[in-house]
Amino acid sequence: MAGKEMHAAGSPCCADSRREQVIKAAADCFRQHGFHGAGMAGIAREAGMSVGHIYHYFANKEAIIAAIVQRDLADMLEKIAAFEAAEDVFRHLLDCVDEGVEMSIDPYEAGLWLEILSEASRNPKVSAMVSEADAIVRARFRNMLRNALQTGWVQDERELNGRVEIISAIFDGLIIRSVRNDDFDKEAIMRSLKMVMQYLLSA
Amino acid sequence: MAGKEMHAAGSPCCADSRREQVIKAAADCFRQHGFHGAGMAGIAREAGMSVGHIYHYFANKEAIIAAIVQRDLADMLEKIAAFEAAEDVFRHLLDCVDEGVEMSIDPYEAGLWLEILSEASRNPKVSAMVSEADAIVRARFRNMLRNALQTGWVQDERELNGRVEIISAIFDGLIIRSVRNDDFDKEAIMRSLKMVMQYLLSA
Repeated sequence: MAGKEMHAAGSPCCADSRREQVIKAAADCFRQHGFHGAGMAGIAREAGMSVGHIYHYFANKEAIIAAIVQRDLADMLEKIAAFEAAEDVFRHLLDCVDEGVEMSIDPYEAGLWLEILSEASRNPKVSAMVSEADAIVRARFRNMLRNALQTGWVQDERELNGRVEIISAIFDGLIIRSVRNDDFDKEAIMRSLKMVMQYLLSA
Repeated sequence: MAGKEMHAAGSPCCADSRREQVIKAAADCFRQHGFHGAGMAGIAREAGMSVGHIYHYFANKEAIIAAIVQRDLADMLEKIAAFEAAEDVFRHLLDCVDEGVEMSIDPYEAGLWLEILSEASRNPKVSAMVSEADAIVRARFRNMLRNALQTGWVQDERELNGRVEIISAIFDGLIIRSVRNDDFDKEAIMRSLKMVMQYLLSA
C-alpha cells in the first residue's frame, strides 16, 4: 500500500509532504505526551519513518516547534492581508469573530498551543521563536488598523497597543477557556465578543 | 540545620507545611521539566524528602495538581467574597483590575498554569479537576454580579454568561500574552482593560 502510494502519480512523496508528515506526527506526540515526554524515536514511529529520516528534516524537537510556529505565523499574516484588502475593514473584522473563536477553541490546536507555550515559558529558544512571530503579527495588525480606521480613533500608539493587546488576550484566552470551561456557550460568547470588538475598534 | 529546624519552637514541621513543601517542589519540577518530565523521585529530591515521604502526602502527581487547583480555587473564592462584601462592587471590580493583571502575568504562575492546562487538555482526570473548579468560580462570580449590579444590566442569563466568559478570557489570555509578547506594555494594557471592564459591566 505504501509502495503503491510512493509511485502513484501526484503522490505526496516529495520532501515538503514528508516534512509535513513529521510535523503532524510530532504535534500528535507533543499533544499526547507533552514536549518532554515525546522523544524523536516516538515521533519517528508515529510518522512511520526511521529516526534517521526524521533527523534529515529536523535537527531536534525545537526545530519542529519552530516549523509549527512559522506555519501559524504565515496563516496569521494571510488573514491580516485579507483584512488589508477588505473594502470595509471594521465590518470584515466583526465578520471574522466567529471564525477566530472556532480557531481558538479547536481542541487539537488548543492542546498543541498550550504545550508550545508551556515550553516557551521555560525554554529561551522556544520563547524567542514564539515572541518573534507574535511581534511580527502585532506590528502588522496594528499597522492595518492604523491605516483602515478613522483618524482620532485612538489617542496615540500606546493606546493602540493596549487595545490590540486586549483583543489578542481575548482570542488567546479562549484557548484556555475552552479547556477550563466544560459548559462553554459558544453563541453567547460570540455575541459578547462582537460587542467588545465593536467597542474596542471605535473611538 | 534540618535537625535544628525540626525542633525549633514554632517550626513549620507540621503535616500542613510538609504538604506545602511538596506542592512547592512539585510546582518547581512541573515548571522546569513539564508534568511528564517531572518524576516523583525528582520532586522528592527538590523537596529534600524521601520518595516514601512524598507518597505519604500524595498518591501521585495528579493528586499534587489537584491540591494546586484547590488552593487556587480557595484564593478565587476569597477574592469574590471581597467583591460581595464591597459597598460599591462596580468600583471595587475596576480597582482590582491592576492586581488581576499582575496575577495573570506573574512568570512563575503563568508557566505553572500553562503546564497544568496542557495536561488538562490530554488527561481527563486533570481536566475534571480544572473544570469543576472553574464551574464553581464562574457560578459564584455570576451570582455576585447578578446581586450587585442594577436590574436590566443584561437581558438574560446567557448574556451574563457571555460577558463573564469574555472577562475570564481576558485574564486567562494575559497568561498567554505574557509569554508571547516580550514587549508587554502593562500600563497601556491596564488602561484598555479598565475601559473594557467598565463597558462589559454596564448596561
